[in-house]
Amino acid sequence: MDISAVNALSYEEFVNIFGNVVEKCPLITAAVWTSHPFMSINALEAEINDFIDALPESGKEGILRCHPDLAGRDLHSGALTRESQEEQARAGMGELSPAEASRMARLNEKYKERFGFPFVICARMNDKARILSELSERLQNERAAESARGIAEVKKICRLRLQALVLSEAPKL
Amino acid sequence: MDISAVNALSYEEFVNIFGNVVEKCPLITAAVWTSHPFMSINALEAEINDFIDALPESGKEGILRCHPDLAGRDLHSGALTRESQEEQARAGMGELSPAEASRMARLNEKYKERFGFPFVICARMNDKARILSELSERLQNERAAESARGIAEVKKICRLRLQALVLSEAPKL
Repeated sequence: MDISAVNALSYEEFVNIFGNVVEKCPLITAAVWTSHPFMSINALEAEINDFIDALPESGKEGILRCHPDLAGRDLHSGALTRESQEEQARAGMGELSPAEASRMARLNEKYKERFGFPFVICARMNDKARILSELSERLQNERAAESARGIAEVKKICRLRLQALVLSEAPKL
Repeated sequence: MDISAVNALSYEEFVNIFGNVVEKCPLITAAVWTSHPFMSINALEAEINDFIDALPESGKEGILRCHPDLAGRDLHSGALTRESQEEQARAGMGELSPAEASRMARLNEKYKERFGFPFVICARMNDKARILSELSERLQNERAAESARGIAEVKKICRLRLQALVLSEAPKL
């Protein structure tokens, strides 16, 4: 799917296909459609990033709060979005040892209590050991730094989801 | 459910309960949680409205694009959110005559083609005759006026959804 195919989509098709490049935030995808046609996939990605950057701090925290916990309840109940399910499974989140699972749950709760939003990391670019050590380290950050860090991870996730969708030849309409 | 019960919710519970007061935009609900505790339900509503007002024009159009068509494909396929399903059913959108249904479909398409977002109206405050006449009239507006009008309707829908959730004694967690 090249950029001309993307530009030929109606807004409804566009939101159907790309609506979850930022987890549970189809508003963002739907908003950047206003800037179509896009020069390239990179330009589309840049529009998304610009939209996120222009949100107030509460909006950035809101994006983070739309993300599920890693190895959390939604993974085990099957309630994750398709994208999150794949990403968490590949990073080994479904195969934690009991000790790892309980450490992850405890750190996730501490993180949410401290910051008021969940720990977000690009699971595809990390394995379970790295995710656990990052979670533990990032718990020490200040709230503003951690919000910025979470949003940087959201953008990495978005980039990989965009690439996966564009590379799939026959997007589901 | 009074405001102290709302303020006692975790962000996850808050987003689970109130995440669809603006259709398919849990980002907005999740963002305003940053301002909790809220003085009152009206204060919560005001935070939501302020967040919407502070979005760039593309963001407002994005909100509108997250709305389904009235009496459209999603109503007939059962793909609407629970809230939209109830609202459209009450306004008689499931019981249009063939002539009304075809007029509605034709006007919806014209509207989307003209503005690049769907016709949004607070179905609970209108019946099918009024919805059809409004759709026909609003098709004549300029894009900026119509975006503002759509957002005003989004806020009415939000208010009624908030009230319904707060009045329900036992929210689903």
